[in-house]
Amino acid sequence: MSEYKLLHHIHSPADLKKLDADRLEDLCREIRRILIATVSKNGGHLAPNLGVVELTVALHRVFETPKDKIVWDVGHQSYTHKLLTGRFDRFPTIRTEGGLSGYPKRRESEHDAFVAGHSSTSISVACGLARAKALKNEPGQVVAVIGDGAFTGGMVYEALNNAGHGNENLIVVLNDNEMSISPNVGQMARYLSEIRAKPGYLRAKLRVERFLDHLPVVGKRLKRAILRSKSALKDMLYHSNFFEEMGFVYFGPVDGHDIAALERVLQHAGRLHQPTLVHVETVKGKGYLFAEKNPSAFHGVSKFNIETGNPDVRGGACFSSAFGDALCSFAARDERICAVTAAMTEGTGLAKFARAFPDRFFDVGIAEQHAVTFSAGLAASGLLPVFAVYSSFLQRAYDQVLHDASIERAHVVLAVDRAGVVGEDGETHQGLFDVAFLSTIPGMTIYSPSNYAELAACLERALFEEDGPVAVRYPRGGQSLASYTPSFSHTDYEIVGDPDGPVVLAAYGRLFYEALGAMRLLAKRGVSVSVLKLKKALPIPPGALEFLASRQRVVFLEEGIKSGGIGEQIGCLLLERGFAGRYTLRAVDNRFVGQATVARSLESLGLTAKPIAEFVMRERES
Amino acid sequence: MSEYKLLHHIHSPADLKKLDADRLEDLCREIRRILIATVSKNGGHLAPNLGVVELTVALHRVFETPKDKIVWDVGHQSYTHKLLTGRFDRFPTIRTEGGLSGYPKRRESEHDAFVAGHSSTSISVACGLARAKALKNEPGQVVAVIGDGAFTGGMVYEALNNAGHGNENLIVVLNDNEMSISPNVGQMARYLSEIRAKPGYLRAKLRVERFLDHLPVVGKRLKRAILRSKSALKDMLYHSNFFEEMGFVYFGPVDGHDIAALERVLQHAGRLHQPTLVHVETVKGKGYLFAEKNPSAFHGVSKFNIETGNPDVRGGACFSSAFGDALCSFAARDERICAVTAAMTEGTGLAKFARAFPDRFFDVGIAEQHAVTFSAGLAASGLLPVFAVYSSFLQRAYDQVLHDASIERAHVVLAVDRAGVVGEDGETHQGLFDVAFLSTIPGMTIYSPSNYAELAACLERALFEEDGPVAVRYPRGGQSLASYTPSFSHTDYEIVGDPDGPVVLAAYGRLFYEALGAMRLLAKRGVSVSVLKLKKALPIPPGALEFLASRQRVVFLEEGIKSGGIGEQIGCLLLERGFAGRYTLRAVDNRFVGQATVARSLESLGLTAKPIAEFVMRERES
Repeated sequence: MSEYKLLHHIHSPADLKKLDADRLEDLCREIRRILIATVSKNGGHLAPNLGVVELTVALHRVFETPKDKIVWDVGHQSYTHKLLTGRFDRFPTIRTEGGLSGYPKRRESEHDAFVAGHSSTSISVACGLARAKALKNEPGQVVAVIGDGAFTGGMVYEALNNAGHGNENLIVVLNDNEMSISPNVGQMARYLSEIRAKPGYLRAKLRVERFLDHLPVVGKRLKRAILRSKSALKDMLYHSNFFEEMGFVYFGPVDGHDIAALERVLQHAGRLHQPTLVHVETVKGKGYLFAEKNPSAFHGVSKFNIETGNPDVRGGACFSSAFGDALCSFAARDERICAVTAAMTEGTGLAKFARAFPDRFFDVGIAEQHAVTFSAGLAASGLLPVFAVYSSFLQRAYDQVLHDASIERAHVVLAVDRAGVVGEDGETHQGLFDVAFLSTIPGMTIYSPSNYAELAACLERALFEEDGPVAVRYPRGGQSLASYTPSFSHTDYEIVGDPDGPVVLAAYGRLFYEALGAMRLLAKRGVSVSVLKLKKALPIPPGALEFLASRQRVVFLEEGIKSGGIGEQIGCLLLERGFAGRYTLRAVDNRFVGQATVARSLESLGLTAKPIAEFVMRERES
Repeated sequence: MSEYKLLHHIHSPADLKKLDADRLEDLCREIRRILIATVSKNGGHLAPNLGVVELTVALHRVFETPKDKIVWDVGHQSYTHKLLTGRFDRFPTIRTEGGLSGYPKRRESEHDAFVAGHSSTSISVACGLARAKALKNEPGQVVAVIGDGAFTGGMVYEALNNAGHGNENLIVVLNDNEMSISPNVGQMARYLSEIRAKPGYLRAKLRVERFLDHLPVVGKRLKRAILRSKSALKDMLYHSNFFEEMGFVYFGPVDGHDIAALERVLQHAGRLHQPTLVHVETVKGKGYLFAEKNPSAFHGVSKFNIETGNPDVRGGACFSSAFGDALCSFAARDERICAVTAAMTEGTGLAKFARAFPDRFFDVGIAEQHAVTFSAGLAASGLLPVFAVYSSFLQRAYDQVLHDASIERAHVVLAVDRAGVVGEDGETHQGLFDVAFLSTIPGMTIYSPSNYAELAACLERALFEEDGPVAVRYPRGGQSLASYTPSFSHTDYEIVGDPDGPVVLAAYGRLFYEALGAMRLLAKRGVSVSVLKLKKALPIPPGALEFLASRQRVVFLEEGIKSGGIGEQIGCLLLERGFAGRYTLRAVDNRFVGQATVARSLESLGLTAKPIAEFVMRERES
């Protein structure tokens, strides 16, 4: 790795500290080169990581992890941190099965203070770490690094409300690039841009104070008099910004690509022994022209060509775009339909809707709780809101679906994207829980289409035939290429194959195609089975239950957590009905699923055609 | 009802508007009288309602519900609203089975804009209602009434971030009484008190602007020049408070007990056609001396004597106090133990801990999400955090338990209070979901003690023997008075009665005593059954499963939602094992449970001794 002359000598932050300051620019160049090279091969988060190269170098030159703790919010910007903390050699394995995680993980390195993946948690974690240090009289600083996008999530304010008092060893670094994934939305973003616009003022305030402090005799008295008064002068001097009101000493804005300036301010912050917020301005995608020009597109990417910036595989249709197209067509004929996203316009396939129906499109920021309750408010007024959200992030709004949508039967449609295994992002992003947690909510309806045509049909039913909260869930990526002509009939379930055979494979969503594949494999070996496909997973269609109850052998396949899932519900119902056959539930049982491709993950969970068929064969032979 | 001369003529807000302003003081007196009289009989929220009598009167004199919408945050302060919107006659039924709800409910009245119960949702709901009005070109204002305590919940900031732009018909009334349930905590509370302290300044700003606006020729030019400049003068003039930064026109502080002043400012706000925040100062408990002096104690109360202010039944030991005592005893011998509460120090039994170990006690405000993730941070540093929280409110932190505590196996103990049926607060407060939603989380452990002694033993095991997130859940109120000597042995389950009988009643938590009662009733009728009691509900103890699998007839009783609960998990596991007996699960099946006493609720769910015994007998006879 001769192209990484400096990097391959850095085995820990101690090595970084030994480096002469005039080599740092070269180091950052090397870091950017390996970031671009690796992400262009493995996919991953590019623009966020390119934006924090200098900031990360400065942090590790000033602080000493693991004695000091750095908590990365969301964590997708931690690649440089990994490179500087002994993981340079393993870096090419990032986001691959068995390789480095794309997010911080405590079990991966003592330099990773805490797991991340979901947004807006870092200040809460850092508060906990900082309080613990205080209680245990341990030395060291705790630094939370959080983007301005994460400031649209409510948890940040819960934490700020508690952080700015008594956490003397806490530093919050606000990495402000005016973006969440797309340009940041809302009043807080506007406010931050206002603060950024007046650095002169903020420095002036410090100057006035220092001036007064140094004025012999009169100065201190004058300062005290001003402080006691309620004069406009006091307001002028002590015009605080929001962070100061929350009890933080505020520094900023600082150029996030000027390592020397960053080191100075971080060192100063570390010596203050007061909760401190350092406002850093960075350029998302810095140092790679395509990413700088189009940071949203290079936020998270799959393999791409470094020279052209073009993805290796052009994104064609996928479940997200099929959802977006279907929603647009319904919205064109029914103006009650609104779309809501939590900072995921592109990811959830809503870009077209946003352009076509700007008045009925709401990007609320990374605020899933608000998104659901806001949607419930729209629904209570007779509109038809559709909140499109990744399964994993919907976890944030469990109480809102239950308390705000379900109790009053507000007709909110949840378009649950990335439902099931998601692949390379690993544990923190898997969509394995939505069916289970939504099932606990009284009156919930869940559709689980298997392909684009069904997705459109299910969405239509969710919008126009159902009441109360309704989820339509579909996986990441595209529909199966397996040949199968879906029934467009208005049914909640379908039976494929030999309906009189004793063995039935039951599934919903994408796994239907694996069941179908298993059926075909088994047919080749002379074993005739049927496949039950649930389009409506909840309430469990009575006819589907009847059918299962009449079989001798049921194998239920579920790309989701076992506990609370549909397979378990059906198992218990069958038992209560006195089902006398055999029942097996193959699902994700009491475990997290790590990073790997979707195909590999499904395979190792035993949820692909071959292992399913083998399971049925083994059983017949035993 | 001659003592309510004015009130009984008010059948709708229109009647209120007809009333002469000089009668309003008398009306408020009547309202306070009926509030005190009714709550002293039925129990309920007293101090919050006494605090907003004038505010509610002013709101209904200025606005026209249901054309205008009033969204009550939490909703426990909506009693006066109910009295003024045609529910005076039914008011004595409040919080009783079949009577008025203690919270707003759309199905109860067209004047109730939305359900409430959990904190910090009102601005999100109001945003939805306001946007819908705009999209539908409907006239009318939307008013969210929210306490300063609710401002510790993150959802508020998610909503504010989106509310202050484009919601021209939105008014947020901040009801500031310096309290959540107990005195309000954190930096936002401090900040609000700062704003309250300088009303002169805020009015001055408006005066200066108006002055400049009216100065002929020069004035407007001067104003423009000032606006364009970056001068200190501009800062002085436009020194904004947080709400103004968030895009709201700010009015306040206003005396919340001066109806004329309130009407003036609300009228003005309604004419502005800009998102507006009206900051109102009220006195919690106003007009009832005992409540004014001790608003925390009179926040939510059971029956009490009006003359003395003393509760009719002295609160003795209960599960909450048993938890608090046990935790104190463990904390005395292990200084790693910390306690965390989300504004529920008294309710969760932590007052003693807070006094004994102030350094290790953290009240984070109504911020369940932060509470869990903060606790995970403490745990990651080797401390032993216990987050005591009502089951219903833990719903808010589902993702934090999953993502922040479980993935890294942070050893956070959740002391889940009010688990099960809670009684008079109804749908929004039932603790019926925790077992189901916690069960979906990999690696979760759930203890469900049946009495105080077991609670202490389970808490000890949760603290010192377990890993990762652990819940210890227990119901509202006191332990059963039924005679039963609990086994203190170190087991996860117990079998009581005839272990060889074919019929077994299985239960956990409080329902164990109902199963025991049923066993005794059945014994009298010559039917011998055994009772399986789970102390550890999750992971399901293998021995308990073995035992059940060996029986012919299993009836599982669960004071919780069926879908995803322990009974369903066991049912499916038994079926997978080829269980050939009969299985019935009696749980709360896909429904919400309304208000009634706990005893009545359990009875109507068929979960008390008698209906259980009858069910077993019926079955034998059939």
